[in-house]
Amino acid sequence: MKALTVRNGEINLENIARPEPAENEVLIKVRLAGLCNTDFEVIAGMIEFNGVLGHEFVGEVVNDPAGELTGKRVVGEINIPCYNCSRCHNNQYKHCKNIKAIGMRGKDGALAEYLTLPGENLHIVPDAVTDKEAVFTEPIAAAVEIAEQYHLKPSEKIMVIGDGKLGLIIARTLWALGFDVEMIGRHQEKLDTLKPLNIKTYLEKLYPEKEPDIPVVIEATGSTSGLKAAIELVAPEGKIIYKTTTAKNHDLNLAGLAINEIKLLGSRCGPFKPALNLLERNELHLDRLITDEYKLEDSLDALKAAREKSSLKILIRP
Amino acid sequence: MKALTVRNGEINLENIARPEPAENEVLIKVRLAGLCNTDFEVIAGMIEFNGVLGHEFVGEVVNDPAGELTGKRVVGEINIPCYNCSRCHNNQYKHCKNIKAIGMRGKDGALAEYLTLPGENLHIVPDAVTDKEAVFTEPIAAAVEIAEQYHLKPSEKIMVIGDGKLGLIIARTLWALGFDVEMIGRHQEKLDTLKPLNIKTYLEKLYPEKEPDIPVVIEATGSTSGLKAAIELVAPEGKIIYKTTTAKNHDLNLAGLAINEIKLLGSRCGPFKPALNLLERNELHLDRLITDEYKLEDSLDALKAAREKSSLKILIRP
Repeated sequence: MKALTVRNGEINLENIARPEPAENEVLIKVRLAGLCNTDFEVIAGMIEFNGVLGHEFVGEVVNDPAGELTGKRVVGEINIPCYNCSRCHNNQYKHCKNIKAIGMRGKDGALAEYLTLPGENLHIVPDAVTDKEAVFTEPIAAAVEIAEQYHLKPSEKIMVIGDGKLGLIIARTLWALGFDVEMIGRHQEKLDTLKPLNIKTYLEKLYPEKEPDIPVVIEATGSTSGLKAAIELVAPEGKIIYKTTTAKNHDLNLAGLAINEIKLLGSRCGPFKPALNLLERNELHLDRLITDEYKLEDSLDALKAAREKSSLKILIRP
Repeated sequence: MKALTVRNGEINLENIARPEPAENEVLIKVRLAGLCNTDFEVIAGMIEFNGVLGHEFVGEVVNDPAGELTGKRVVGEINIPCYNCSRCHNNQYKHCKNIKAIGMRGKDGALAEYLTLPGENLHIVPDAVTDKEAVFTEPIAAAVEIAEQYHLKPSEKIMVIGDGKLGLIIARTLWALGFDVEMIGRHQEKLDTLKPLNIKTYLEKLYPEKEPDIPVVIEATGSTSGLKAAIELVAPEGKIIYKTTTAKNHDLNLAGLAINEIKLLGSRCGPFKPALNLLERNELHLDRLITDEYKLEDSLDALKAAREKSSLKILIRP
């Protein structure tokens, strides 16, 4: 089968053997996959990985030995815990010491014709959700995780900083969950993807207030200047949600955290079920986030397109 | 009166006029004062200030217009809010936009024969508490603040990193509050000040465990390497309490916060009443923290002594 691979830092479109599902696994035929910034961190070697790239996908189960999922359209949670380390015994499966994750850690990913996953990782996609929506399940789940981890109040303003894919998905997801969301970004055309939801947006240079004392700020820029801005925007005793997994160093003064007693709260992957529930309501206008779609055999071009500054989500169809 | 002042970055022992209390203020004769690392940040210009240094003190009220405090031995909360800004209206007095703070922001401090403070800032020192203990009220209150802000569980291990004054006070304060405290430091003789309390300590280079998954880590080193160590020691979904107000930049990768969903929680000044309650119990062995005592006229020597690496608390008696 065709697969987009990274091996020792080199990206290639390869012909490799179709994966054989292990005992607890099912074979999935990929219907549609998405590119994510994390894929570029893998390519850049910031995440050490050799194998098939990709972790955002919707697919169809080819055969499920247990029988119940065969033929079903599914999305899949990306982490595969060992169930045997101290963290797994503590129910912290996502933080397993021997974790595997498709397309980034010890397990082939979804930018291929087929992949395998444990059956328990899979969720059936409701009929009302199209493939082009379902492929966003993983990043929407990561946005839902913010509300899963921390008590956000419907009465409190939430400011998302950063109008990249992650920020734009977080803003519409928290909006769909009923929160009072606004966004600061640097690209009017990206901010405009939030227009159908009536989410208030600001170009960074036009943001009017000093010391706005915003109760919750979500840092989704991945940049040092974004974190600095978050520390300046957030209210004393407020929360900054930190979503950035990039391996770049920050050169930053953090005294403001102590002085203003700010909480800088890390947040990563999230639960798929509530993400699928949100998708089923069809209110997120995700079509506005799709820049282009490529065939798997053109995925090297897709990578190039995804690196463009103006680009949002690039989809890949095997 | 004699006073240790900083003016445009220059430190001097000056003779200045005795301060006149404003309408809501009382005049206090300083009995004993302490030097704190924050004083050195003021001296270094990291905190912009011109006036009398110092914020840790115990004194005697010379005259209280309301009459109730005259002659009493008191300690004083250091922050003076305006009661008029949006944060004060939100009961966030400590984060007042126009805050003054003795010895560091718009208000003369305690390294003098006299200072003035609003009567409401003062707390009477119980008879059982000596001057040499009472002078620690402010830093003990800052340690109590950790439990005031965040839910710490008696069953969970708390690791304090950094055996400076702040760390050593935090460790014994949280121990006195019944928590399961340990400490990692770099100076055996400083760690040994915790021996009378039977607090387990480790020299950093001898710390035995990798991935110890500690639920709560308190960063009290003020250094980038300390924060890095905290991120490595804390459990996934755990808390790091961030006590460092130093204005130095960190050059540090924070991806671990997001990946392990760690909470980095800022913490500053705290409540005096529970600090005095702890002091009254007389269990903290604070005498072990006092390196030396100087007369106010020798306070330039005292500053020099406080800069020694081996030094802990230096006291100054007017």
